[in-house]
Amino acid sequence: MERELVQWLRDTLPAHPRLKVGLGDDAAVLALGDSADLVVTTDMLCDGTHFRVSDTPAEWIGRKCLAANLSDLAAMAAQPTAAVVSLALPRNHPDKLGLAQGLYKGMLPLAEEFGLTIAGGDTNAWDGPLCVSVTAMGGAPPPGSLLRSGAEPGDWILVTGELGGSLGGGHLDFTPRVREALLLNERYDLHAGMDISDGLGLDLSRMCEASGVGAIVYRENVPASPAAEQLAAAEGGEAVDHALADGEDFELLLAAPPASAERMLSDQPLECGLTHVGQVTAERTLRLETRDGQTLSWTPRGYEHD
Amino acid sequence: MERELVQWLRDTLPAHPRLKVGLGDDAAVLALGDSADLVVTTDMLCDGTHFRVSDTPAEWIGRKCLAANLSDLAAMAAQPTAAVVSLALPRNHPDKLGLAQGLYKGMLPLAEEFGLTIAGGDTNAWDGPLCVSVTAMGGAPPPGSLLRSGAEPGDWILVTGELGGSLGGGHLDFTPRVREALLLNERYDLHAGMDISDGLGLDLSRMCEASGVGAIVYRENVPASPAAEQLAAAEGGEAVDHALADGEDFELLLAAPPASAERMLSDQPLECGLTHVGQVTAERTLRLETRDGQTLSWTPRGYEHD
Repeated sequence: MERELVQWLRDTLPAHPRLKVGLGDDAAVLALGDSADLVVTTDMLCDGTHFRVSDTPAEWIGRKCLAANLSDLAAMAAQPTAAVVSLALPRNHPDKLGLAQGLYKGMLPLAEEFGLTIAGGDTNAWDGPLCVSVTAMGGAPPPGSLLRSGAEPGDWILVTGELGGSLGGGHLDFTPRVREALLLNERYDLHAGMDISDGLGLDLSRMCEASGVGAIVYRENVPASPAAEQLAAAEGGEAVDHALADGEDFELLLAAPPASAERMLSDQPLECGLTHVGQVTAERTLRLETRDGQTLSWTPRGYEHD
Repeated sequence: MERELVQWLRDTLPAHPRLKVGLGDDAAVLALGDSADLVVTTDMLCDGTHFRVSDTPAEWIGRKCLAANLSDLAAMAAQPTAAVVSLALPRNHPDKLGLAQGLYKGMLPLAEEFGLTIAGGDTNAWDGPLCVSVTAMGGAPPPGSLLRSGAEPGDWILVTGELGGSLGGGHLDFTPRVREALLLNERYDLHAGMDISDGLGLDLSRMCEASGVGAIVYRENVPASPAAEQLAAAEGGEAVDHALADGEDFELLLAAPPASAERMLSDQPLECGLTHVGQVTAERTLRLETRDGQTLSWTPRGYEHD
């Protein structure tokens, strides 16, 4: 449904002189005059969908709400500046003030770590479950924001860190790749970027669609996390399938020209890993190259909250 | 509870070089470098509290959600620029796409009227009721934003339009006083401003607290709306009591030095009325002057959503 809505909005929303990038990327980009462009993203996280208030400390929920927004700023290679926070608290919660304070206590260390100020908010009590909406703003990098739409045939596809199995806990305590995105975007030539929130396959398909290209992914190269390994061991199947399809990794997905990608891979300038997982193609399909060199057509499944 | 939370946040949130005005005003003010300051506000509106999805067209709900944010920008005399919209849609709604489209259809004419772009959003389906969060941004006026905290003893207190009875419908179809705020702030000397969202008395007490002053309100001068008159006729009581205490008027509450206020009142430069309803006092109490010249201590009641 969100996909149809976004398409309808793209057809419906009028152009605006200040809007450089609107719906369809990880964040919007606004031209505000003489200053750097403003990158703005909003994420609403809901009890029962993105967390369970009954078995998750409020601090972790708050942290995740801000971290998901920071991950969207990272996807644009933007420097975080400020966030505002809206809360709908369940009226019958025995300690609404404590719940709200817990949410903020979870956000504050992350805000400090990334130099972001929590500038304001709105707090309501209602008869529904907990709903948290965060809007984060950042400054675009000098050459302009990193977009989904710049991937070109021949580009190498890279991912940071390891993928899969985040429901084991990683979806709550991940560190958004803000520093990594700023560093890579400053030092290397990147064509496109986004964060992996709904699974590598699904998010790569979105990057390809935005760029008017296709991609081939080297299945055996995709780095599976220890949590994905554990899941595979417990449930059967292969860890790499979790790495390809599980959601909420909050790692970076990048497309870069081969020379730049080779430099990054050889430099390995990040504390986390950086892995070559595929290549952008002119043919607008998504394919998976398997261990034995076979190339299969690939219709990615992923984690859609809707 | 929100009051305690805001106090705790004020004590807890660290200062930040970009944050000129934080929690406690109608919106936050961020310094972004060479451009005009950025004014940012967020409002979350919840089914059952701010509207009832069962008996209100989605277009009206969407309109109200954006209008409430625009009213906060007006309170700061900011020029609207952009908004982002987060939706939590009830999963069991028979037409989620239609509901979401209806919400946006209600926002779009208002966005166009005030030159604001809807730059992005986030849409979720969940097991809770409809929850809409809008964050709006605008440019601060050249001399700086209009704040709650500038009222001085001797200032005259003015309000735009007419107050009270908004639950009769006005809370859904009001026009945010953006143009009025920009015009008044440009042409006249204003010391303080805010929008009246929780009732004249309660909001005036907040302006007084922020400014470290008190106020006396001339009860007979407070302009009651036709809806307040109707309510009083139907329920008994006096219309002015609705004008003093009902919420969601979304009119402007202003404090201005007497010479400036006299000019405004004589010019009457707005399409809506502008009325002198009281005076700021050094004594930090709130008082009500009645018809017969009596001055009563006043503990305002108002409309707190919490």
